[in-house]
Amino acid sequence: MTDDSDVIAALHAVLGPAGVIDDADVATPYRYDRASAVEPGRPLVVVRPASTAEVQVAVRIAAAHHVPIVTRGAGTGLSGGSSALDGAITLSTDRMRSVHVDAAAQVAVVQPGALNAEVKVAAAEHGLWYPPDPSSFEICSVGGNVATNAGGLCCVRYGVTTDYVLGLEVVMADGRAVRLGGRTVKDVAGYDLKRLFIGSEGTLGIVTEVTLRLRPPPPATTTIVATFDDVVHAGVAVAAVMSTLRPDTLELMDAAAVAAVERVRPMGLVGVGALLLAQCGTGGGDVAELERCLRDAGANEVAASSDADEGELLMGARRMAIPCVERLGTVLIEDVGVPIPRVGDLVAEVAAIAERTDTLIPVIGHAGDGNLHPLVTFDASDAAATERAREAFDDIMGAALALGGTITGEHGVGILKARHLAAQLGPDVIELHRRIKMAFDPDGVFNPGKWI
Amino acid sequence: MTDDSDVIAALHAVLGPAGVIDDADVATPYRYDRASAVEPGRPLVVVRPASTAEVQVAVRIAAAHHVPIVTRGAGTGLSGGSSALDGAITLSTDRMRSVHVDAAAQVAVVQPGALNAEVKVAAAEHGLWYPPDPSSFEICSVGGNVATNAGGLCCVRYGVTTDYVLGLEVVMADGRAVRLGGRTVKDVAGYDLKRLFIGSEGTLGIVTEVTLRLRPPPPATTTIVATFDDVVHAGVAVAAVMSTLRPDTLELMDAAAVAAVERVRPMGLVGVGALLLAQCGTGGGDVAELERCLRDAGANEVAASSDADEGELLMGARRMAIPCVERLGTVLIEDVGVPIPRVGDLVAEVAAIAERTDTLIPVIGHAGDGNLHPLVTFDASDAAATERAREAFDDIMGAALALGGTITGEHGVGILKARHLAAQLGPDVIELHRRIKMAFDPDGVFNPGKWI
Repeated sequence: MTDDSDVIAALHAVLGPAGVIDDADVATPYRYDRASAVEPGRPLVVVRPASTAEVQVAVRIAAAHHVPIVTRGAGTGLSGGSSALDGAITLSTDRMRSVHVDAAAQVAVVQPGALNAEVKVAAAEHGLWYPPDPSSFEICSVGGNVATNAGGLCCVRYGVTTDYVLGLEVVMADGRAVRLGGRTVKDVAGYDLKRLFIGSEGTLGIVTEVTLRLRPPPPATTTIVATFDDVVHAGVAVAAVMSTLRPDTLELMDAAAVAAVERVRPMGLVGVGALLLAQCGTGGGDVAELERCLRDAGANEVAASSDADEGELLMGARRMAIPCVERLGTVLIEDVGVPIPRVGDLVAEVAAIAERTDTLIPVIGHAGDGNLHPLVTFDASDAAATERAREAFDDIMGAALALGGTITGEHGVGILKARHLAAQLGPDVIELHRRIKMAFDPDGVFNPGKWI
Repeated sequence: MTDDSDVIAALHAVLGPAGVIDDADVATPYRYDRASAVEPGRPLVVVRPASTAEVQVAVRIAAAHHVPIVTRGAGTGLSGGSSALDGAITLSTDRMRSVHVDAAAQVAVVQPGALNAEVKVAAAEHGLWYPPDPSSFEICSVGGNVATNAGGLCCVRYGVTTDYVLGLEVVMADGRAVRLGGRTVKDVAGYDLKRLFIGSEGTLGIVTEVTLRLRPPPPATTTIVATFDDVVHAGVAVAAVMSTLRPDTLELMDAAAVAAVERVRPMGLVGVGALLLAQCGTGGGDVAELERCLRDAGANEVAASSDADEGELLMGARRMAIPCVERLGTVLIEDVGVPIPRVGDLVAEVAAIAERTDTLIPVIGHAGDGNLHPLVTFDASDAAATERAREAFDDIMGAALALGGTITGEHGVGILKARHLAAQLGPDVIELHRRIKMAFDPDGVFNPGKWI
């Protein structure tokens, strides 16, 4: 039997006062991630190990006392994957923040609590670049990026987190630390266990070190804004662009999303039916080709700017969309993905669902990847509105699956999408997931009771 | 107890005469892959299913009779991964060859026996491109590419097989067929089981369908040949190039490899100390930059050609290197990889090992990825030479590991590198591999007794 005070005392003894938070008030910020519709549990204790060795000790104590562990990075997750569980240990990596760049090898060796932006800055100091750029890149952690296989804006051209992870150090459920992968670009020695951990949302182990591939910086880019009559026309244009071009980014915002951002940061875009925001290399004729393609695909106005600050302002507006929409109500954040030719169909379905459920659903997303974030927005104090919002949320995932898509492209399953996972994977594949979980964490130490 | 004739009769009953080869002579070509130093076993029977359903039936019969299955594609593997095992069923996918391109979605849905080149051709008919290009692309199968996570020449820029696999259908050890992944570019719903099967070398299941991502064709390329005094200078130049540029290909051939190809196809390259062969887009100044970089890094002569036929001739010479060297003796094909700044160190080590063991070791490889193929060449009828060659083979893998590298970058472990795997992964990671194997194939139906 677990005696809670024994567990806390054991953790105190090895992690010291800086490593343990057992005051519930102080622990409160560690309960939440950014899934505003998820109500987190109350952890037994929060631990903040400073090293791999301390993570190992914490895991061994947890396993010995049968207390589960929820691992969290910076708490910017959007699906509840790092939300606290009642009576569990929340293990925060926020004291494991080191970033070491090996410029010759073009890698960064990073502890999981380091922020994505900190890696970008450290890489830039050596004339290098770490591409993955979730909208939250300034405040999200690399460990969380790995746990969710996070995407971002430039991923349409440059790939997602998993494409940049060369190696991992992982603490397993029995406290052993293992190294998976390494520093070589190509490596097929054995099973691709590294990628099994990437995107596993804290259910198989705790990532304690990440070796990231860096690359030379991209050429200067031009930002292109195209307006459309409505979001369906914009969605159809996405397929046209992606069938021949490879922009660095291709982002979509519908009228409601633009309006929500305009309320916070006016940019003179009120009244547009929908926007596509694209970036591509300034040289070599790509800009002209992209502009022509957008016009041919039905854009009303197409404007280009090669000014980096102006481009960043526009992309910044796009990245602000979720917090801006959250000012309008509680938001269930979708993260659906469809094959690119179906983007137009998906946004049409979302519009129909919004109308049918009488719910505000601004749509943003990484349209060039077919990955959209309809933001199901509602007044959580209104029971009927909440019920309609939940119906809309379910129906959008159903629509994505019917179009051959996925319920989550980059945010992870977490709690928010847990009961929808089986609809996508089916019972046989769910059963294979359970075998993996049993193989690596048979006693359910890591993040139990969420999606696996 | 297994009665061999029962197994064959059961297979005959469901697969018919076209699907079963039980004449040992006719079965002989199905015993070998292209690892010339591996002596394959004698299979009980060869089956050639024509559909997923027939694969399922074959697996169920094998499992029921406790007869293992070795899956093979086109038999071009270089590590013995598909070499026959005594008394096992060899399951060939050579009758499962369909390729369907969905141009709008930019995907090809392919059966595993389809050749890599057949996918390229089918994609090109729709104005699309399937990048991965193992040197054997004209004769290797997509199923084999998936089983080994095959690389190739253009992978330095465009990625390896796993980067193009959106979805798999896999037959598991109990005969169930499951679908992993799908058609969306980004998908984080659940564990990345798809990538666990990619590179698993027929040990976890049988891939029966692959959904491949296609892309628009690349711009026209220029081919650049640079000569160096010796292979170490060429290796050092690789690091210089890759620190600032992203060529489409960057291949290395040392003097012995060039000489071996010259004997078969004279190209006027006799006497060079080493070659780098690079390709990059013809427009946009990349060619001039790459030429300058190669000269700065110590190249003697640098010549460029934007003529596609001439470029293909040079790249064809590089692709011929392994068969040309095999005319000189039996070859143990290395597939080591190191971090790119260590390429120069690795080729220096290989030269020292060649001298110490008095063994011919031509070196070729995908230098831009840090992935090299030293070709340990010997007279298999000479016991002392064979012993020295085996020592050289072991020492090169040891050198790669000492440089922070891998024993296999793209060919797979197979039989050839099986006893070296533990040196790379260590006992804890090997143990995790066993847990995966037990989770998916507890009775050892698939490719037992090779590396897992």
